[in-house]
Amino acid sequence: MGTDPLPLDPRIAEALASVSTATLTTVLLKKGLRNVWLRGSRPLAPGQPRIVGHAYTLRFVPAREDLATPASWASPISTRAAIEGMPAGCIAVVDAMGVTDAGIFGDILCARMKQRGVAGLVTDGVVRDLAGVLGTGLPVWCQGTAAPSSVTGLTFVGWQEPIGCGGVAVFPNDLIVIDMDGAVVVPAALVGDVIPAAVEQERLEGWIMREVERGVPLPGLYPANEATTARYRAWVDGQQDQGPK
Amino acid sequence: MGTDPLPLDPRIAEALASVSTATLTTVLLKKGLRNVWLRGSRPLAPGQPRIVGHAYTLRFVPAREDLATPASWASPISTRAAIEGMPAGCIAVVDAMGVTDAGIFGDILCARMKQRGVAGLVTDGVVRDLAGVLGTGLPVWCQGTAAPSSVTGLTFVGWQEPIGCGGVAVFPNDLIVIDMDGAVVVPAALVGDVIPAAVEQERLEGWIMREVERGVPLPGLYPANEATTARYRAWVDGQQDQGPK
Amino acid sequence: MGTDPLPLDPRIAEALASVSTATLTTVLLKKGLRNVWLRGSRPLAPGQPRIVGHAYTLRFVPAREDLATPASWASPISTRAAIEGMPAGCIAVVDAMGVTDAGIFGDILCARMKQRGVAGLVTDGVVRDLAGVLGTGLPVWCQGTAAPSSVTGLTFVGWQEPIGCGGVAVFPNDLIVIDMDGAVVVPAALVGDVIPAAVEQERLEGWIMREVERGVPLPGLYPANEATTARYRAWVDGQQDQGPK
Amino acid sequence: MGTDPLPLDPRIAEALASVSTATLTTVLLKKGLRNVWLRGSRPLAPGQPRIVGHAYTLRFVPAREDLATPASWASPISTRAAIEGMPAGCIAVVDAMGVTDAGIFGDILCARMKQRGVAGLVTDGVVRDLAGVLGTGLPVWCQGTAAPSSVTGLTFVGWQEPIGCGGVAVFPNDLIVIDMDGAVVVPAALVGDVIPAAVEQERLEGWIMREVERGVPLPGLYPANEATTARYRAWVDGQQDQGPK
Amino acid sequence: MGTDPLPLDPRIAEALASVSTATLTTVLLKKGLRNVWLRGSRPLAPGQPRIVGHAYTLRFVPAREDLATPASWASPISTRAAIEGMPAGCIAVVDAMGVTDAGIFGDILCARMKQRGVAGLVTDGVVRDLAGVLGTGLPVWCQGTAAPSSVTGLTFVGWQEPIGCGGVAVFPNDLIVIDMDGAVVVPAALVGDVIPAAVEQERLEGWIMREVERGVPLPGLYPANEATTARYRAWVDGQQDQGPK
Amino acid sequence: MGTDPLPLDPRIAEALASVSTATLTTVLLKKGLRNVWLRGSRPLAPGQPRIVGHAYTLRFVPAREDLATPASWASPISTRAAIEGMPAGCIAVVDAMGVTDAGIFGDILCARMKQRGVAGLVTDGVVRDLAGVLGTGLPVWCQGTAAPSSVTGLTFVGWQEPIGCGGVAVFPNDLIVIDMDGAVVVPAALVGDVIPAAVEQERLEGWIMREVERGVPLPGLYPANEATTARYRAWVDGQQDQGPK
Repeated sequence: MGTDPLPLDPRIAEALASVSTATLTTVLLKKGLRNVWLRGSRPLAPGQPRIVGHAYTLRFVPAREDLATPASWASPISTRAAIEGMPAGCIAVVDAMGVTDAGIFGDILCARMKQRGVAGLVTDGVVRDLAGVLGTGLPVWCQGTAAPSSVTGLTFVGWQEPIGCGGVAVFPNDLIVIDMDGAVVVPAALVGDVIPAAVEQERLEGWIMREVERGVPLPGLYPANEATTARYRAWVDGQQDQGPK
Repeated sequence: MGTDPLPLDPRIAEALASVSTATLTTVLLKKGLRNVWLRGSRPLAPGQPRIVGHAYTLRFVPAREDLATPASWASPISTRAAIEGMPAGCIAVVDAMGVTDAGIFGDILCARMKQRGVAGLVTDGVVRDLAGVLGTGLPVWCQGTAAPSSVTGLTFVGWQEPIGCGGVAVFPNDLIVIDMDGAVVVPAALVGDVIPAAVEQERLEGWIMREVERGVPLPGLYPANEATTARYRAWVDGQQDQGPK
Repeated sequence: MGTDPLPLDPRIAEALASVSTATLTTVLLKKGLRNVWLRGSRPLAPGQPRIVGHAYTLRFVPAREDLATPASWASPISTRAAIEGMPAGCIAVVDAMGVTDAGIFGDILCARMKQRGVAGLVTDGVVRDLAGVLGTGLPVWCQGTAAPSSVTGLTFVGWQEPIGCGGVAVFPNDLIVIDMDGAVVVPAALVGDVIPAAVEQERLEGWIMREVERGVPLPGLYPANEATTARYRAWVDGQQDQGPK
Repeated sequence: MGTDPLPLDPRIAEALASVSTATLTTVLLKKGLRNVWLRGSRPLAPGQPRIVGHAYTLRFVPAREDLATPASWASPISTRAAIEGMPAGCIAVVDAMGVTDAGIFGDILCARMKQRGVAGLVTDGVVRDLAGVLGTGLPVWCQGTAAPSSVTGLTFVGWQEPIGCGGVAVFPNDLIVIDMDGAVVVPAALVGDVIPAAVEQERLEGWIMREVERGVPLPGLYPANEATTARYRAWVDGQQDQGPK
Repeated sequence: MGTDPLPLDPRIAEALASVSTATLTTVLLKKGLRNVWLRGSRPLAPGQPRIVGHAYTLRFVPAREDLATPASWASPISTRAAIEGMPAGCIAVVDAMGVTDAGIFGDILCARMKQRGVAGLVTDGVVRDLAGVLGTGLPVWCQGTAAPSSVTGLTFVGWQEPIGCGGVAVFPNDLIVIDMDGAVVVPAALVGDVIPAAVEQERLEGWIMREVERGVPLPGLYPANEATTARYRAWVDGQQDQGPK
Repeated sequence: MGTDPLPLDPRIAEALASVSTATLTTVLLKKGLRNVWLRGSRPLAPGQPRIVGHAYTLRFVPAREDLATPASWASPISTRAAIEGMPAGCIAVVDAMGVTDAGIFGDILCARMKQRGVAGLVTDGVVRDLAGVLGTGLPVWCQGTAAPSSVTGLTFVGWQEPIGCGGVAVFPNDLIVIDMDGAVVVPAALVGDVIPAAVEQERLEGWIMREVERGVPLPGLYPANEATTARYRAWVDGQQDQGPK
C-alpha cells in the first residue's frame, strides 16, 4: 500500500551523526520552515540512541465500533501488514491523531519491528504494555503509555501515505532525525541543502559555547557580529591547518 | 483519486426525510455504535435545510511551508481537482483536523461546489470569507469562520480516502444525514438495517411526545413499559386502519 | 434521593427582579467569592427570560457501556425519576462534566419539565434535538447541541446532591440567577447579605452610566471618589424625596 | 504609559474600504506572514460595521487576589486611565490571555469608549453585561460574554505596550482591519506594500467569482494560468478604458 | 457515608497476580467495554508495585471560597473522615475532576492511609509535597504534583459514592487493577467472567511473544489463524501434561 | 529596561531554608491568595536544589514572521540583553505564554546565566537542546523540551515588567521559592508577614506527622482541636527549654 520505501544513503547518516535536532530546526527556520518538530515525541526510556532514517508512515482515524475490533487485526489493511512491509533502518512514524488513551502498539508488535531491523518508532499517540515494550529494546518516542489497545480509540487505515503527526506534515521517505529533544522532519527535497548548513551551524555553536565558558558576554557573540565572525573564521582556519581530526 | 463516488438511492432520501439525527444516533447506539456524530458540525447559517447524501471525503494534514503555498492550489492534487470530481447530490466531508484558524474554503470554491450540485459541506474546521460563502447559498456545517486561507495551516493531500472528521471515522460513500443538531454518519453496510428502525423510532417518539403533552408522567412512558407499549401498538393499528396519510 | 427541594421566598424573586448577574458577581467578589459563574451556560435561544430559583441538582458520571444504555432509562435512578421530583419554580442544574458530544435531554424530557413548571434548565453540557427542545418553550442555558443521547457519553447517578457545574460548586437549594450573561450561584447562606448590597450596586451603576452618558470621564467617577459619592448620595436623597417610583 | 498613539492616514482607510480580511491574509501570506489573524475575535452582534484603525493596546496578566480588586479600579494604572488616553478612531486591542470567565469591560467602560470616538474593541477575552454593552453601540469582537468582572480573573498592568492577542503579536499603532471574519493585524512597517497588493487581489478575486458563476471550472481559473491571466488583463484594460467608476 | 466497603476475595488477587492491565482492557473490549482505563493515572514513582483491590471512592467538586477553607478540614464531611473509613487492602480512587493545580493529599494524609493498610491511591488529580508523599511509601498513581492544598481548587463532598475518575465511571467496590500502564476498573458484576478470560489471554500472548522472538511473521500469528491456534493448543496440552509449574 | 533588580536579604533565604512550597501556599491561602503556584513549573532534572530568590522577569508575545527571526537575536531588546542585566542570585521567571513547541533558551544562553550566578530559571514554556542545558548545571523548572528555537513560536519584548507565568501574576522583585513541587510566588509586600507564619506552620506539620506515625487518627489532630493544640504547645515549650537546636 502507498509509496515504496527508500534505503537511506549512508553518507546522510554519517553527516548527521553529530548534528542535534535543535540545530536542524534552526537551519530549517532560516529556509522558512517553522513547523518541522513533532509535538509530543518524547523518549519512552532514558538513554535511547540518536537515530536517523526515512519515514515509514502509518495512519489511523478515530474508532468506529463496527470497524475497530480485535477481528480487524487480521485484515489485509492492518498494522500487522504494515509492519511486514517495513525495511531495516526505517523509522516508523505513526499518525495517532494525538490520542492518548489507546496504545497503538504493545510488546508483540514492537518485538516484530525490532526483529525486522526498524530503527525506531515515533508517534503522537501512546504505546501500551510499557514493561513489555521496554523489554523489546525498540527505541520509542511518544506521549506515554495507556493500557487499552489501539482499536479502543483508533481505526487503522493505511501506510506510506502523507500523514500529520504531532501537528507536522510527514510524507513517506522524508528524513527523520530524533534525539533527546524529540523528532524533526527534514523534507526529502531539502536534505541536500540542509546537511552542510547544519554541520556548519553545529561547529559554530560549539565554538560559541566555548567562548561563553571563557566568560565572553552574549551581545556581539551570539549572534556573532563582524569581529566575532572574524575570530571564528580564524579559529576554523587554524583547526583546518591542523589537519583532519 | 481514491474511491469512486456512488449515486444515492432515492428511496433512502425519501425514507429519511422525516428522521432526525437524534433518532439516528439512538438507533445506531442500539447496534453498538456510539461514535457517529461529527463534533463541531454546527450550521453556518440559520435555516439551512436538512440534507441526506453520500460522503465525498477530502483530507488535509498540517501545513508545511514548502508545500502549503498559494502555488500548490494549481497542483493536480488540490482542493480544486477534488471539487471537480464531486457528483451532484454528494455531501463534501472535509477532515481539517479540527483546525479553527485557517478557512478551508472561501466564496469561490463554495460557489463552484454549488454550481456542481453539491448538497452541502461539513467539516471539523472552518470556512473563510463568511459574507461571500453565505452568498453562494451552499449549506455549510463547520466550527465557524477564520480569515486566513487553508494553506496558512493545512496541506491538502487527497480525496475519497478514509478520514477522521470531528472525531469520527468517515469512509467514502458512507451515508451522511445533517440537520440542526449537526451531522451523523451511517456506515454504508448498516444503512439497510438502520432505516426501518429509525422510521419506527421516530413514530414512537412522536406518540410519546403527545402523551407527555397530555400530562402523562415519564416513568413507564419513556421508555415504554408493557402497558404503554400496548397502548402505542393500539394507536399504531388505529392509524393504519385509517389508511395511508 | 438527596436533599429535599425548598420553595423560593417570593420576596427574593421580587428583590432580584432587576439585578443583573454581572452585578451579583461584583457583590459576591466583595465578599471573597470569585468562583460563582457557571462556565458554558449560554442561552440556547435569543430572548429567553431572566429567571431566579432554587437549584435542583442532577449528576452524571462518564458512560460505561454496561450501565449507560437505553435500558437504564427505566431504572429507579434515572433522569426520568429525577424530573418527577422537580417542584414548580425550581431551576434544574445539571452536572454533565462539560461533555459536549452527548445531549443530556431532548424534546420529551424538556416537555415534561415544562409541564411540571420548572423555571429553566442550566448545564455545562448540551441538549439534543434542538428543534424539539425549542418547541417546548423551556428556557435552557447550555453549551449547545449534539445529536447523540446522554447514554452515549454519560451515566446518570443521582439528584439533589452537591455537584460541580461549569467549574462551580452548586449545592441543592442554592439560589440561581440567570440572564443573558449566563448563570450565577448565590450560596444559600449568603442570600440575606447579598440581596440588599446587589440592589444598591445596581442603583449606583445606573447613576454612573447616566453620568458617563453626560460626558463625565471615568477617573473619580467609577469607582466613585468622595466628591462623586457625595453627588450620588444627594441624587439618591432627591429620588427618595420624590417618593416611591 | 507606553507608546503614543498615531492618527490614521485617511488614504489608508479609503484604500481598504472594500478589501476583506480574507484578502489581507492572502497578501500577507505571500510576504511570509502566516500568523496575523486574531483567534477568537468573533463579532458580538450581527451587523457590526467593517472597521480600520490603529491598534491601541491594553494588557492584562492573571488575577492575584492582593492586586485584582475593585479598589484597583481607582489606581493610576487602571483600565479607566487607559481608556482616557484612547484617541478617536483607534481600535482597542486587549490581551486578556484568552480568559473566558471574566469580562474585561461592561456597559460603563464601553459607553465611555463610544463617547471618546473609539472605533471598536477587539479582545481574545470576553465582555460582561451583554445587554448593557450592546446598548452602547460600541462594535465589539470577542469570545463571548461572562458575568464576572475583570478582576475576578485578571490584573490590568498597562497600555500601548506590545501584546499577544488571540495568539498574534500586536504592537501599538499596527494597522487593524476587522470584518465578519474577525480581526487581522497589518504590521505598521508593511502597510505601504500590502495595500496596493490587497486592492489588486480583491479585484482579481471578484473577476474570478464572476467566471465561476458563468460556469468556468476551477483548474486553470483559480489560481489563474497564463490564458486566464491574459483574459483577466484584457478585462482590466477594458474596465480602465471605461474610465473611473 | 455512602456504600459500605467490601473485603477482597483472595482468590481474585491470586488469579490476577500475573495479568496485565493491557490484557484486562482487551478482555473487557471483547465484552463491549471500551472505557475502563483511568486517564492520567501515571505512577508517581518508579518501581511501584502492581496492586489489586476494591475501589473506595472519594469525590470533590470545584472550590467555592465559603466552603473550601482550611477550617473545612475539621468538618464531619472531610477527607479526614473518609480516610478513617478506609479498610486495609482497599484502593482509594479520588475524583478530582482532573484538576492539576491543587494537590488532593500531602504527606500527612498519605502517611495515615499507609498506616491503615490502604493498598494505593489513584486520582485524576495531583498530590502535594512530593518529597513527603514519597517518604510515606504509599503507592500513588496520579497526574503529578502541585504545591497548593486541595481547598485551593476543590471542595470535598463525600465518599463511597459513584464517581468519574479520569473519564471513567467508578462505583464503590468495583475491582481496580493497577500496574505501570495505570489503572483499570473491572465492574463488580463482570469480575467472574473477566478473570478466566484474562488468564487465558495472558497465556496466549506469552506464547505469541515467544513465536515472534523465533522470527514468525505477524500475519496469521497475531491474531492467530486456524493453523496457529492448533499449534498453540498443542503447546498448551504439552504444558499441562508436564503438570503444574 | 523595566524595574531595577533588588538584592535578596540573606535573612529571608535563611528563614525559608526549610519551608516547603506546599507550606507557603497554605499560609498564603489563609491570607486570601489562592493563585500563587506557577502551573507547569516541573523540575527539568532530578535532584535540583531548593532555591529562593527575587524574580527577574522576561516577557514573550507570539511569533510574527517579520519580527521573530534569528536576526532579532542581535536587537537591543533581546533575550541576550536581558540576560546581561541579571544579577547574581536572581531567579529568571519567563512568560512564554505556555508555549510548548518552541524552546526559549538552549545551552548557550543557560551557560551564560550560570556564569552570571543566576540561581535558576522557571518558565511556563520549554527549553531546547536538553543535553546541552543539563550540561550547564543551571537549575531549570519548565514544561519540558522542544527542539525549535524561541523565534519559531515567540517574539521577545522586554524584561523586568509584570508578567503572567503559569497562570500567575509575577512582578519584578517578587519573592520566588522553588522545590520539587514547583515554584511559588510570595508577593513582595507580603514577605514580612508570610515568613514567620510559614516557619511556624512547617514546625506544626512536622509535629503532626510524627503523631500520625505514632498511630494517632486524623480527626482532632489535623487540623488540631483544642486538646491537640495544647499538646503541641507543650511540646513546643519543651523543645525551647532544651535550647536552640
